[in-house]
Amino acid sequence: MAGSTLGTIFKITTWGESHGRGIGVVIDGCPAGLPLTKEDIQIFLNRRKPGQSRYATPRKEDDSVEILSGTFEGKTTGTPISLMVANQNQRSGDYSEIAGFYRPGHADYTFHEKYGFRDYRGGGRSSGRETIGRVAAGAVAHKILGQLGISFTTYTKSIGPITISSFDKNAIWENPLYMPDMDAAKKAGEYLDECMKNKDSSGGVVECVVTGIPAGIGDPVFEKLDANLAKAILSIGAVKGFEIGDGFQAAKSLGSCNNDSFCQSTEKGIHKTTNHSGGVLGGISDGDSLIFRAAIKPTPSISSPQKTVNTSGENIEVSIKGRHDPVIVPRAVVVVESMAALTILDALLLNMTAKMEGICEFYKIR
Amino acid sequence: MAGSTLGTIFKITTWGESHGRGIGVVIDGCPAGLPLTKEDIQIFLNRRKPGQSRYATPRKEDDSVEILSGTFEGKTTGTPISLMVANQNQRSGDYSEIAGFYRPGHADYTFHEKYGFRDYRGGGRSSGRETIGRVAAGAVAHKILGQLGISFTTYTKSIGPITISSFDKNAIWENPLYMPDMDAAKKAGEYLDECMKNKDSSGGVVECVVTGIPAGIGDPVFEKLDANLAKAILSIGAVKGFEIGDGFQAAKSLGSCNNDSFCQSTEKGIHKTTNHSGGVLGGISDGDSLIFRAAIKPTPSISSPQKTVNTSGENIEVSIKGRHDPVIVPRAVVVVESMAALTILDALLLNMTAKMEGICEFYKIR
Amino acid sequence: MAGSTLGTIFKITTWGESHGRGIGVVIDGCPAGLPLTKEDIQIFLNRRKPGQSRYATPRKEDDSVEILSGTFEGKTTGTPISLMVANQNQRSGDYSEIAGFYRPGHADYTFHEKYGFRDYRGGGRSSGRETIGRVAAGAVAHKILGQLGISFTTYTKSIGPITISSFDKNAIWENPLYMPDMDAAKKAGEYLDECMKNKDSSGGVVECVVTGIPAGIGDPVFEKLDANLAKAILSIGAVKGFEIGDGFQAAKSLGSCNNDSFCQSTEKGIHKTTNHSGGVLGGISDGDSLIFRAAIKPTPSISSPQKTVNTSGENIEVSIKGRHDPVIVPRAVVVVESMAALTILDALLLNMTAKMEGICEFYKIR
Amino acid sequence: MAGSTLGTIFKITTWGESHGRGIGVVIDGCPAGLPLTKEDIQIFLNRRKPGQSRYATPRKEDDSVEILSGTFEGKTTGTPISLMVANQNQRSGDYSEIAGFYRPGHADYTFHEKYGFRDYRGGGRSSGRETIGRVAAGAVAHKILGQLGISFTTYTKSIGPITISSFDKNAIWENPLYMPDMDAAKKAGEYLDECMKNKDSSGGVVECVVTGIPAGIGDPVFEKLDANLAKAILSIGAVKGFEIGDGFQAAKSLGSCNNDSFCQSTEKGIHKTTNHSGGVLGGISDGDSLIFRAAIKPTPSISSPQKTVNTSGENIEVSIKGRHDPVIVPRAVVVVESMAALTILDALLLNMTAKMEGICEFYKIR
Repeated sequence: MAGSTLGTIFKITTWGESHGRGIGVVIDGCPAGLPLTKEDIQIFLNRRKPGQSRYATPRKEDDSVEILSGTFEGKTTGTPISLMVANQNQRSGDYSEIAGFYRPGHADYTFHEKYGFRDYRGGGRSSGRETIGRVAAGAVAHKILGQLGISFTTYTKSIGPITISSFDKNAIWENPLYMPDMDAAKKAGEYLDECMKNKDSSGGVVECVVTGIPAGIGDPVFEKLDANLAKAILSIGAVKGFEIGDGFQAAKSLGSCNNDSFCQSTEKGIHKTTNHSGGVLGGISDGDSLIFRAAIKPTPSISSPQKTVNTSGENIEVSIKGRHDPVIVPRAVVVVESMAALTILDALLLNMTAKMEGICEFYKIR
Repeated sequence: MAGSTLGTIFKITTWGESHGRGIGVVIDGCPAGLPLTKEDIQIFLNRRKPGQSRYATPRKEDDSVEILSGTFEGKTTGTPISLMVANQNQRSGDYSEIAGFYRPGHADYTFHEKYGFRDYRGGGRSSGRETIGRVAAGAVAHKILGQLGISFTTYTKSIGPITISSFDKNAIWENPLYMPDMDAAKKAGEYLDECMKNKDSSGGVVECVVTGIPAGIGDPVFEKLDANLAKAILSIGAVKGFEIGDGFQAAKSLGSCNNDSFCQSTEKGIHKTTNHSGGVLGGISDGDSLIFRAAIKPTPSISSPQKTVNTSGENIEVSIKGRHDPVIVPRAVVVVESMAALTILDALLLNMTAKMEGICEFYKIR
Repeated sequence: MAGSTLGTIFKITTWGESHGRGIGVVIDGCPAGLPLTKEDIQIFLNRRKPGQSRYATPRKEDDSVEILSGTFEGKTTGTPISLMVANQNQRSGDYSEIAGFYRPGHADYTFHEKYGFRDYRGGGRSSGRETIGRVAAGAVAHKILGQLGISFTTYTKSIGPITISSFDKNAIWENPLYMPDMDAAKKAGEYLDECMKNKDSSGGVVECVVTGIPAGIGDPVFEKLDANLAKAILSIGAVKGFEIGDGFQAAKSLGSCNNDSFCQSTEKGIHKTTNHSGGVLGGISDGDSLIFRAAIKPTPSISSPQKTVNTSGENIEVSIKGRHDPVIVPRAVVVVESMAALTILDALLLNMTAKMEGICEFYKIR
Repeated sequence: MAGSTLGTIFKITTWGESHGRGIGVVIDGCPAGLPLTKEDIQIFLNRRKPGQSRYATPRKEDDSVEILSGTFEGKTTGTPISLMVANQNQRSGDYSEIAGFYRPGHADYTFHEKYGFRDYRGGGRSSGRETIGRVAAGAVAHKILGQLGISFTTYTKSIGPITISSFDKNAIWENPLYMPDMDAAKKAGEYLDECMKNKDSSGGVVECVVTGIPAGIGDPVFEKLDANLAKAILSIGAVKGFEIGDGFQAAKSLGSCNNDSFCQSTEKGIHKTTNHSGGVLGGISDGDSLIFRAAIKPTPSISSPQKTVNTSGENIEVSIKGRHDPVIVPRAVVVVESMAALTILDALLLNMTAKMEGICEFYKIR
């Protein structure tokens, strides 16, 4: 089947592989009348660009986005917005070697089994470059949500064994690992230096906090807000786990501790006094901040020797050449945020039809 | 929007609430020619029935399923299979009290905010009884997968702080908590007794292992097998986390450890020598066992006093009356297994169109 | 695949066959807060009931609907509405004969080829009884549209060669053929008497006029309002053609005649002075009445002898026993109206997200 | 909502407007291993190009397609195929005038009502250029169907009052109107000359015959093959009617005439002796040729004076400047064929999961 389309109302379709002509996304269902320039999108793409620290690939990629359709006089028209980033740094020659075997931890083997052959250049469609389409579309979703008062704080919570122990929002942008704790960032940097020395790589955890979501977003049963978030986040390559609110910790907890009390006050109206739920009850937003985490595995491309099988079916030992990110977590931060924005926006648009009252008022019939 | 339909080819739509006429599911897209009796389904429903141990609600519910359509002469016809379980134990009177306030940890408040009012009887659509439709449909999916050589082992991995430390498959069915470790089951039982004494409740973790899935199932990008599994699992009420393979542990790991080597041998063909991936690479099954876990929060209904707000907006203190499960984890085991079966079957059916070669052979044109 | 689910927001799934336990529909995505009783639905079902004239099957079928879920205190709750009509008149014995051959004009052969076998009792899933689910769901859509000021006039435009030559809305309910012209109805009745005498059957045309649809409903490109109407109408068994506005006549027309002029007046605002378009321009409603027609083939069950093949592959001659409607057009009127209501409602709900302005106003953020 | 995505398995998303950067389509779900070059697609695009006769716009448009992703070493990889045709002939200046009023018969008014403003340059998204994406995707579907033995004959059946009275397949390519009857083509040409002289335009009918479809394709109820065809065809701008087999003629017919007898013979197996059904029974292909027709309205852009309203709400008289096609029917032929190919292919792929037997055989488990 397909697999490259996401969303019901705000629907995106991504395309492109590491070494084709480019990477793109078509956004269908974007509301008309949103002011949109390519700079709005470029800012988000820049957050995932490689070459920004010594912990990320030194490849220079411009990743400059073009708006091919869907805007007129600086505003969205309601028709599909086609965005494209041309691939500039294509050196197919580099990949002749990996054509011959299945890299451990990569999708080489599974693509081959599914499709009968594979575009082996730079991982093809399973390359990290595939996320460009997600981030470009996420930037547009982000802008719409901003107009509705919804905002995101997304950061690296841990790298390998190093976890943040304090939270300073400003610190996020002051270290190349996007950690909200400068001490943890320093230790994580040293840990990554060690990984690189050992020709090894590290995983980590990304956390995302979303504020301003009104209560009532998400649908019961299969289209729960957190269920769709889980899908969106797990659909990012290298993500191996998702949790919302207390997550796996809730499994060890007691009901008396895990339940959040409701409280009424003049300033806040009805609200929860704690947020173990992470902002969702029964799959529907509860008016509190949405808080979730994504577990990201270590970069599978490592230069230390590994055992595998070649395409002739022989057991061999390989070392992945080239320089690779010892950790992809910092570059994944904006991808996680983008997937969350896309999911929340779609749920918000779908929610407009929940009540007869809202529908009648919208169509001004009483 | 909707929210009660799941799947692309094998598509299910569930309906019903705790205190309506019944709970049901329509399976649309079930292949024709599958032998199917109501006993095939009843076996699965019995696994989620309450009243089977002192850790589950003592309500007597027969939960007897009827096949209303879609079979003829004992086989599925390819047309929609409508399954229904009548509600027998409806005592709306019991619920007059909770109509007046929002229970902490439940979906009372969020349903009210979304829809303007709510069916407060027994949780309405957000009741645990909603899972009957999932399990009934899952039983059919399970039977089809069985014919394709795919089987499931699902069990309680932990209850509160008590985690299994050994694995005996037979033990799963020998204790009311469905734990594959009799010692752990005993300790968990004692822990739950303590919870009950304290008018409190516990969470836990369910683990599911699926064997026999061929390599190549699942689609790249948004329809990854693990992404759809994550959605399916998080769509179960009370689930707060999902992880596949090493999951959150992978975030602390090194690439050299987390990568699974490929190996070729005469007996096994190409296979992985370890399974940190949990059976999925790049969102596509890798031929190994699928292994994933679901974190389940403590039952929100507890009889100890809690603070909340009533529907008049006043701060009050409540104790939830009636006897409630101190833990829902054991009853969730079959629900988790059902959601996995539905997800895997749909991916397997979708995979049939991945290659021209397979399509041409199917239509016998060469 | 599936095939029994329709709609994006207001999504219906029908189930059931002629001789199973019953026929039903699940409506998922119905807005909360709509007053709904089973009488609202029964009125529509009564319009498609057999046995109401000598031109319709004399079978007595009660077709009494039950609401199994989705309402509370007389109003819809936003959760799935499950509706069911039990089959009461099941005489499987009657069908032992037709089990052995493929009836001309019916789906016997195609179901057999698709699924490998078929439920031959009364046409199984391809029976006219399948439309009960459509009409029950259509009644709910109709009620919502009524609250938004949208109403339907649907009637028989022609029976065989007899076409209406005048229009009297009240006449529709005064003759068993639902024609808005009593003279034509009389002639059509005589024509049908002749058909019955000849053991033959007749086709006809249903026309539907929908007033009150605001301009702007429907989406460009593939989800045009008329495209979705065409699909909905052609999905009714026995429909062989669809046209909107001038339809096939437009193909013979000139641009100068077919174009509708726009005009501005104080009473009507911007409006069209003619309606060759049938209320749709570029797939989007233009504020005028929606007008479309459905061509319905003659009832395939006729008692005069026909040539066909039996399931052993032998050429045989058959006469279909039992008494059958010489025309199904009058009973199709409410089915056509129902499918139109479902299509228009879904488009109307989807349209709420077309503009940033509307979204911001809905969420009261400026 | 969206609206620019079509299909379940073979899913296409089109983008682009008349005067943006280009027009494109993303095909998601194309099976892997199909040999595909841009020439395969260009041949189809050339069939819809303007400037090929004096009855079509004299604009020179190269409409040269590029494959941006989804192929490797000359074959499809199973990942999204992104196709783009750059717009070369953009003269926005030309459109400053029509920005100020609503052209009769066009979507100017409805787009404005839906989205609050419109890209008025060349019709924007409702331009005929939008069909480029359909035809490019249709070319790929056509190639796959060709490998499965399915082929298309599509032609102009009538122009205004001139209908073909004989059928010579070779003639189709020998006249600029694509009519299979040279005499009719000559008369239709004269009729169009007359239209042009009168600053007027003409409609017409396109007919499509598809051979080689196996019995069993299409699904019962809402996803009938003919229902999806009707939607696909009505989604083409300017189409006002659809009929299959005898279509509207069937409404005037008798059952004894309209029913097709089945017959068994050694050469042909079970087949129908006539084809009033047009190749579909109960929404499922019956093994016979699929035959359907599309009614196309006269080109709305005419240079004779018309009454309309300007964007300030004043009644005005306008003449559309520039030279326009007096008829779009010939250029619509390949668009109709493309939409049919897309619909049939998707149904064919979906059909692979209809029977347990086929699934088990596919996965080689017995």
